Amino acid sequence: MTAPIQLTKPIQFIPMKQVNIVDPFWSQYIQLVRDVVVPYQWEAINDRVEGAERSHAVQNFKIAAGLAEGEFYGFVFQDTDVAKWLEAVAYLLCKEPNAELEAIADDMISIIEKAQQATGYLNTYFIIKEPQLRWKNLTEAHELYTAGHMIEAGVAYYQATGKRQLLDIVSRMADDIGHVFGDAEGQIQGYDGHQEIELALVKLYHTTGEDQYLQLSKYFIDKRGTNKFFVEEAEKRDWSSIWHKGRIQIDPEYFQVHKPVREQDVAVGHAVRVVYMLAGMIDIAKETKDASLIEASRTLWNNIVHKQMYITGGIGSMVHGEAFSVDYDLPNDTVYSETCASIGLIFAAQRMLQLETKSEYADVMERALYNTVISGMSLDGKHFFYVNPLEVQPEQCNGHNKNYNHVKPVRQEWFGCACCPPNLARLLASLGDYMYSVSGNTVYSHLFIGGTTELNIDGSIVTLKQASDLPWSGVVKYELTTTAQVEMTLAIRIPNWSPQTTILVNGKELQVAEITEDGYAMIKRQWQTGDIVELNFDMSIKRMKSHPKVKANAGKVALQRGPIVYCIEEADNGKLLQQVKLPSDANLTLKFNNDLADGVYTIEAEGVSINAQAWSDQLYAADVAFEETPIALTFIPYYTWANRGEGEMMVWVNELVK
Amino acid sequence: MTAPIQLTKPIQFIPMKQVNIVDPFWSQYIQLVRDVVVPYQWEAINDRVEGAERSHAVQNFKIAAGLAEGEFYGFVFQDTDVAKWLEAVAYLLCKEPNAELEAIADDMISIIEKAQQATGYLNTYFIIKEPQLRWKNLTEAHELYTAGHMIEAGVAYYQATGKRQLLDIVSRMADDIGHVFGDAEGQIQGYDGHQEIELALVKLYHTTGEDQYLQLSKYFIDKRGTNKFFVEEAEKRDWSSIWHKGRIQIDPEYFQVHKPVREQDVAVGHAVRVVYMLAGMIDIAKETKDASLIEASRTLWNNIVHKQMYITGGIGSMVHGEAFSVDYDLPNDTVYSETCASIGLIFAAQRMLQLETKSEYADVMERALYNTVISGMSLDGKHFFYVNPLEVQPEQCNGHNKNYNHVKPVRQEWFGCACCPPNLARLLASLGDYMYSVSGNTVYSHLFIGGTTELNIDGSIVTLKQASDLPWSGVVKYELTTTAQVEMTLAIRIPNWSPQTTILVNGKELQVAEITEDGYAMIKRQWQTGDIVELNFDMSIKRMKSHPKVKANAGKVALQRGPIVYCIEEADNGKLLQQVKLPSDANLTLKFNNDLADGVYTIEAEGVSINAQAWSDQLYAADVAFEETPIALTFIPYYTWANRGEGEMMVWVNELVK
Repeated sequence: MTAPIQLTKPIQFIPMKQVNIVDPFWSQYIQLVRDVVVPYQWEAINDRVEGAERSHAVQNFKIAAGLAEGEFYGFVFQDTDVAKWLEAVAYLLCKEPNAELEAIADDMISIIEKAQQATGYLNTYFIIKEPQLRWKNLTEAHELYTAGHMIEAGVAYYQATGKRQLLDIVSRMADDIGHVFGDAEGQIQGYDGHQEIELALVKLYHTTGEDQYLQLSKYFIDKRGTNKFFVEEAEKRDWSSIWHKGRIQIDPEYFQVHKPVREQDVAVGHAVRVVYMLAGMIDIAKETKDASLIEASRTLWNNIVHKQMYITGGIGSMVHGEAFSVDYDLPNDTVYSETCASIGLIFAAQRMLQLETKSEYADVMERALYNTVISGMSLDGKHFFYVNPLEVQPEQCNGHNKNYNHVKPVRQEWFGCACCPPNLARLLASLGDYMYSVSGNTVYSHLFIGGTTELNIDGSIVTLKQASDLPWSGVVKYELTTTAQVEMTLAIRIPNWSPQTTILVNGKELQVAEITEDGYAMIKRQWQTGDIVELNFDMSIKRMKSHPKVKANAGKVALQRGPIVYCIEEADNGKLLQQVKLPSDANLTLKFNNDLADGVYTIEAEGVSINAQAWSDQLYAADVAFEETPIALTFIPYYTWANRGEGEMMVWVNELVK
Repeated sequence: MTAPIQLTKPIQFIPMKQVNIVDPFWSQYIQLVRDVVVPYQWEAINDRVEGAERSHAVQNFKIAAGLAEGEFYGFVFQDTDVAKWLEAVAYLLCKEPNAELEAIADDMISIIEKAQQATGYLNTYFIIKEPQLRWKNLTEAHELYTAGHMIEAGVAYYQATGKRQLLDIVSRMADDIGHVFGDAEGQIQGYDGHQEIELALVKLYHTTGEDQYLQLSKYFIDKRGTNKFFVEEAEKRDWSSIWHKGRIQIDPEYFQVHKPVREQDVAVGHAVRVVYMLAGMIDIAKETKDASLIEASRTLWNNIVHKQMYITGGIGSMVHGEAFSVDYDLPNDTVYSETCASIGLIFAAQRMLQLETKSEYADVMERALYNTVISGMSLDGKHFFYVNPLEVQPEQCNGHNKNYNHVKPVRQEWFGCACCPPNLARLLASLGDYMYSVSGNTVYSHLFIGGTTELNIDGSIVTLKQASDLPWSGVVKYELTTTAQVEMTLAIRIPNWSPQTTILVNGKELQVAEITEDGYAMIKRQWQTGDIVELNFDMSIKRMKSHPKVKANAGKVALQRGPIVYCIEEADNGKLLQQVKLPSDANLTLKFNNDLADGVYTIEAEGVSINAQAWSDQLYAADVAFEETPIALTFIPYYTWANRGEGEMMVWVNELVK
């Protein structure tokens, strides 16, 4: 039993506004978002990309605003493409002025304002296409989800630019929602089919200081799963569905409405919904100091990361419902592991760190970030994985076996249902929000990403400059500048992949074990300008094993170095990867490869495979001993897979126990 | 390249009428069909089984016959439950008179006759429910499939009882079909969405001698996949579907209409459809001596058994479409391997043996029979597997992972869509049809099942009495009685699992290798009464391996002894079977277990597993060497699995190479 979390000291993340990233590894991703993803997405949602699927997202707003004629087109949540684009733009503007981009965004916001109804209602699908169904199919219509994304955009845009227009729009919209939902006579005692508004409303509360937004978020969290709302609203609609002409099918677990959230001790159903809900739960738990909600959040988190998470930080084991499966059911090939779900897991991790600063949360954040998240986008910024498999055989995916239909062996262009690319864009553009938190005079450094951050400690302006060689070397350096000497604890995360870490403060080595609390090295001292902390993490290659109950990984090993999970690919190792074995005593050597991605360390090892040529064309044969032949194996970072054409890939490799 | 098949000498199977089975292993199955399955099914299709799903199959005929009022109920192919029941009854009556059962069947046939329309049309769905759609949705409606089953029943009932009533009914029905389908003006240039009538019409041709039935079957085979018939008929129906209110979806590969049958070199789509089609193709190939169809049949057969068949004789790798996947894609856990598909494979194997007598076809027949087919039914005759997995983890099947929804860890009671149980019944009740074939003066013995068969060789009545100890011992004995000395070759199959076989004729050992042709020991001599042939097959336990391209079986071994494939089960070996390894040098010892099924040989071995207790609750950990601990392993015959409650099961076990 872990002790209950006591919210004694407030813990706050340092906002990205105060964090400037200058990092050899991560800056390139942020530049990609700025130079490629966001401009491309603007063209895409304006239907100006040749060959791309029709979006109509901007046009829907123009029609709703009375600025154009036409019909609604797209998914019921098509508006979120505009919202997520605006949110990503806000994060870019927050770090770098761009008058042209800001003007485009302002114009878009003015269109949105014109589309908003007098009541505050704002959703182009229900303004243009089915006004009679407004607030009548929360189960399927993503109506509050869509509102939530617009709220996040409004908050981000205000914080970046100081302009209130979109913040005011979403406040009016949230006020309207507050009138519509609640336990009073005439209100809807319900919640959305896709969680998202809960966390968005807490952001709105923080930004505006208006308590009703916090209460509304709390209402949605508290109400969820306590009644039969989806069934009740379906009955009123005569069981109509927004997706098809048949009767709506409601799987309560898919929507996490099978139980009140405080009783949900196992993650079930749609993975993105679960982690968005969890983020909202933690937000409310923190703000209200509700012990039961704090514990429920930790229980759900623990179930996910200790029983249902891939080594890549991916979640969601199955394509049906893009959902969690059962504990330890983590198939590598039929996996879902949606990019958006890992992004949501990062949202939840960052919030868990606001409940209690334990490195295990940041470990998960880093695991998801360096593996699934950046695997989700190619280095041209134009190709994306929605599904991030840990094992691929292209013949299966391209063939008739529909169990693999969702698994693409190469990254795809922008999709019609474009959830992942804009989600990636907004996460990467706001990476500064995830790096440092402060509690009293303690500054926590969670992620090793170079740059500077500015803090106010007891009235002194402290500038912390981090330089990180991650993920290729384990050298991280912090340099401090302060307007006055300051008593402060710099708490630096010791990652779970670094059992041996050395720390020097101004050249003098610390006893790391003695000063480590909850996975953070607590360097408490009087700091002055010029103080330097140097860390050297253990970057030895780790042979990772899975819990014995994980059937898919029995007898298998995965390599990890620092935060990077490795895999083998056909391009280096030929076909029939299932026949490859890595001896448990094989020498693992690093080799720098300039040609892959922007240059990466590969791991070279002597493995064994079988001499497949010796086999006849029989499907089965008796008493055949396969001749094992040596094979030079090359492991590459997982996130760089599928950059050299289509081929087999495998993270978990058979181990030959020596 | 294998030489083309030349149909020089006619090869005919000895009909079951001439074969009396008395066998310690198989007689019990036939008795089960007689005493349990057929009586139970009659109750079921009359809706007299409490708690069972509603059938209405008999009632539909009564309504169509004007003997009752009401609506049609059931699947569009509900009539086939009656047809398959009658066919199974016919096989029982063929071997053992049963006046009561025959009277019930006769009554049923009279109802069927009354239901038949003046034109000869006979299908209760389209008589009662949608007469306007008659012959308008061949794609989905199983209309010719249903007719085919009734034809098979009519032929079987006539052969068993000599009564022509049902044979005449189905002849009139077939005549009607012959008027409706064809290339002449006003005829439908089409074929069924579910193959079956092709093989049935050849049976009708053999029984009645009427060439038009052969020509009609040939028409369906030749026409299939040469036009866009399913699309054309869909257009005429405005794309309506029989299954749902939406637009019909047509996947040509699912129905094997993507190409003319002669060009189908890879098995794709619904597995049962493929093997029923193949059986029909071989029938037509044999009757018409069409070289291209002979080769196409062999090509398709080879693809199935050399690239897409489970070691249990199961086919169909995926639940989507209950279908073939791609070559070597043979997942053990998400497998389909429908009982009916293996039965269809046996139909095809028996027909391939009529093209050329090579033991490889009988090997497959035997493999399917001893493993998937009898795995499909419990020893109480009342519980059935539709899906026959090679690996089961009940938590996965019972949990949320819909990839396993079709996989049941225990046998189920009779289903609403009751295809497999009656198919099992008719196969087992007609097992005598699969045992011997004759070509000139050569008598081939394909299966080792005890009993007697009577032959006419050059005017002499030869009685061959087989006694078989299979599957538990490899001793098989033939004793011959003849009215006169006869020049004859007794060709006995040498199974592929018996590389060392001894044969004694009247106590004198033969040089097996010298007399073996195409896998049959050709014992050519002057036979006289009292001649005895004794065979001793190699019953050593075989460690089976898969083709290296079979991803699911890489590094794994399966045990087989004689025709029986083995598996490990939780009941004997505990949980976490994925962690079990069988050393390549482990002693494998046989042990007779009286408590399992009717007594079976199990295989005992010392394996290794891991000490799972030593693992903490982490999901992943670095540099952990699992301590391997010895474990006493018990392998049981695959067909006896799931008879001791719900638990894990695994056919392909990790091998520890020593």
